[in-house]
Amino acid sequence: MKFNKNLENLTNYEAGKPIELVVREYGIKPQDVIKLASNENPFGTSPLVAKRITELATNAHLYPDDSYFELKDALANKFNVSSKNIIIGAGSDQILEYCLHAKANENSAVLMAGVTFAMYEIYAKQVGANVIKTNSQTHDLAEFRKIYDTHKDRISVIFLCVPNNPLGECLDASEVYEFIRYVKDETLVVIDAAYNEFAKFKDAKKGIEPEFIVQNFKNAIYTGTFSKAYGLGGMRVGYGIASQEIINELGKLRAPFNITTLSLAAAITALSDNEFVQNGIKSNFEQMVRYEEFAKFHGLEYIKSYTNFIILKFNEQNASQIVQNLLKKGIILRDMKSYGLNAIRITIGTAVQNDRVLAELDEILK
Amino acid sequence: MKFNKNLENLTNYEAGKPIELVVREYGIKPQDVIKLASNENPFGTSPLVAKRITELATNAHLYPDDSYFELKDALANKFNVSSKNIIIGAGSDQILEYCLHAKANENSAVLMAGVTFAMYEIYAKQVGANVIKTNSQTHDLAEFRKIYDTHKDRISVIFLCVPNNPLGECLDASEVYEFIRYVKDETLVVIDAAYNEFAKFKDAKKGIEPEFIVQNFKNAIYTGTFSKAYGLGGMRVGYGIASQEIINELGKLRAPFNITTLSLAAAITALSDNEFVQNGIKSNFEQMVRYEEFAKFHGLEYIKSYTNFIILKFNEQNASQIVQNLLKKGIILRDMKSYGLNAIRITIGTAVQNDRVLAELDEILK
Repeated sequence: MKFNKNLENLTNYEAGKPIELVVREYGIKPQDVIKLASNENPFGTSPLVAKRITELATNAHLYPDDSYFELKDALANKFNVSSKNIIIGAGSDQILEYCLHAKANENSAVLMAGVTFAMYEIYAKQVGANVIKTNSQTHDLAEFRKIYDTHKDRISVIFLCVPNNPLGECLDASEVYEFIRYVKDETLVVIDAAYNEFAKFKDAKKGIEPEFIVQNFKNAIYTGTFSKAYGLGGMRVGYGIASQEIINELGKLRAPFNITTLSLAAAITALSDNEFVQNGIKSNFEQMVRYEEFAKFHGLEYIKSYTNFIILKFNEQNASQIVQNLLKKGIILRDMKSYGLNAIRITIGTAVQNDRVLAELDEILK
Repeated sequence: MKFNKNLENLTNYEAGKPIELVVREYGIKPQDVIKLASNENPFGTSPLVAKRITELATNAHLYPDDSYFELKDALANKFNVSSKNIIIGAGSDQILEYCLHAKANENSAVLMAGVTFAMYEIYAKQVGANVIKTNSQTHDLAEFRKIYDTHKDRISVIFLCVPNNPLGECLDASEVYEFIRYVKDETLVVIDAAYNEFAKFKDAKKGIEPEFIVQNFKNAIYTGTFSKAYGLGGMRVGYGIASQEIINELGKLRAPFNITTLSLAAAITALSDNEFVQNGIKSNFEQMVRYEEFAKFHGLEYIKSYTNFIILKFNEQNASQIVQNLLKKGIILRDMKSYGLNAIRITIGTAVQNDRVLAELDEILK
């Protein structure tokens, strides 16, 4: 059977290995597995959210309120925009998908950093768009401009990951705004702010303001998620904030009930538990120092991170081998080989988790 | 800003009105609202599922096992196929979307019944495909063949909704198989079996066997859902069963973590609670008789239904007006006006719910 041509160039995204797989393959007890591979919140689910989910467990048969009235209202208040500037997705991932399905096609190109979130490329290829990456692995806006100037008429979407997953570096908000201004109105600039709560905490200059974007730009969208700082990775809720025009068009691609009834309630509750979020972010950067110190001690290069993970680069040692060896011990980290790097991405865990990971790494590097 | 041309012809699917809206707009207490508009399971969530969700409420921060190993394994056992013949979607809806995004495009056409599930058309238009509907509102396979013969080279996907939502009629499995055999290998026949558990219970001849499809056809896919008989509408889990070739290609369009951690666990548990499912289906047809008797008594036409809903057609009375009046009383039914029918679709409720709906309707028709 023949399928659409675009599928020929597609490969599947390799998700972080789940705890279940380690349990199945290595016979390790679930409670003994440490998973620091997918940038999940190490402090788990906010107790308020868990309580809300429990209260609604008997409502699993009911479709959610597809207008997402209450969640949009809460987000609108938080960000000081209108509900009409907001679209809800199954993770911000789905908003990225809508952006590409709405703006890119076989005749257009999509521009992104050399090493950045893998789904940009996959969604672009789904619609047959050409993918252009900067030579620089991290975001180099001078190079972005140069490429944009050369291919201005073809580039329909530009991704800025602020801060960048999987590397961790972060543009200043002012640089982002200046870049959007530089780009002509027909090119959509997607500001993927999945980890922006972390960056903003570390350095206020990194905080992207959705309100400013809505007020000043007709060709930009801010995407945020409940998966990271809010601790709801498993619930799949994200959002896009942009002009009403963009939101209306993306809305045509949104299937009804694209998030679950429990996810909707969980997200609304998570927004109200600011203490959980802020405590998690604070601990994240306190613990991150331990990995930085570890890297310095062992002469490993690392990227200064504005996220809840850190990249450790290896020299002689083979990072993939290290990841594989730790996996057998029940520690799941992310091998960066598929990104062309001899490096490991480690989600910053709790103090106890980091104790064990650092001890095991120390053993290997000794 | 310009968007892809395909978006120009798109409108949004109108979901059934949520309980929250009736509460907001008419000030009715949530517990007093009867919602029989979206074919949700009136018996709610299986207690086993609710228990499982409660157990896992603190796992909302963890991404699901994206291989969906355990769920696929359970489905493979149930249907006697291989896990490799199965793809998991956020509702069977998402599988329908994958089918169209994989097979249809601007140069192809998609064939479906005159009145059938609205999302077929929306997903087809998303990829710019031409939509062809039979003149017959219900599934008339003679007309399907005739249209197929005329447009053989352009028709890339054919939808058979077995039984048909929103009308309720149902083809025999043997008719479906014969039709697939008639269609050439390059056209994908999608058998939407969202309500097939109901049809099979009422009449064994209506039961579509995924195993038979996998063994005999390279150009057909069976789609099933946990939203109806299994009582998990709010959790968004469905599946497609087909040849490995089809499953592999559709898999390229599946984003990682397309269902939630709690949805995955809920679906696995729901599969184990056969008693809940069977009791619900049994009650459904017992209660449906009451609506049939009601229609006969009032001289209303109805469509013999193989699902968990029934269509009542009106003559002098305006169905939209009736739906609107009942809404103010906290009873949510589905107006069929957008399908071009002066009719109401009523989900078969519990005995208590049906008591009230029938009493209110009786009052109106007196």
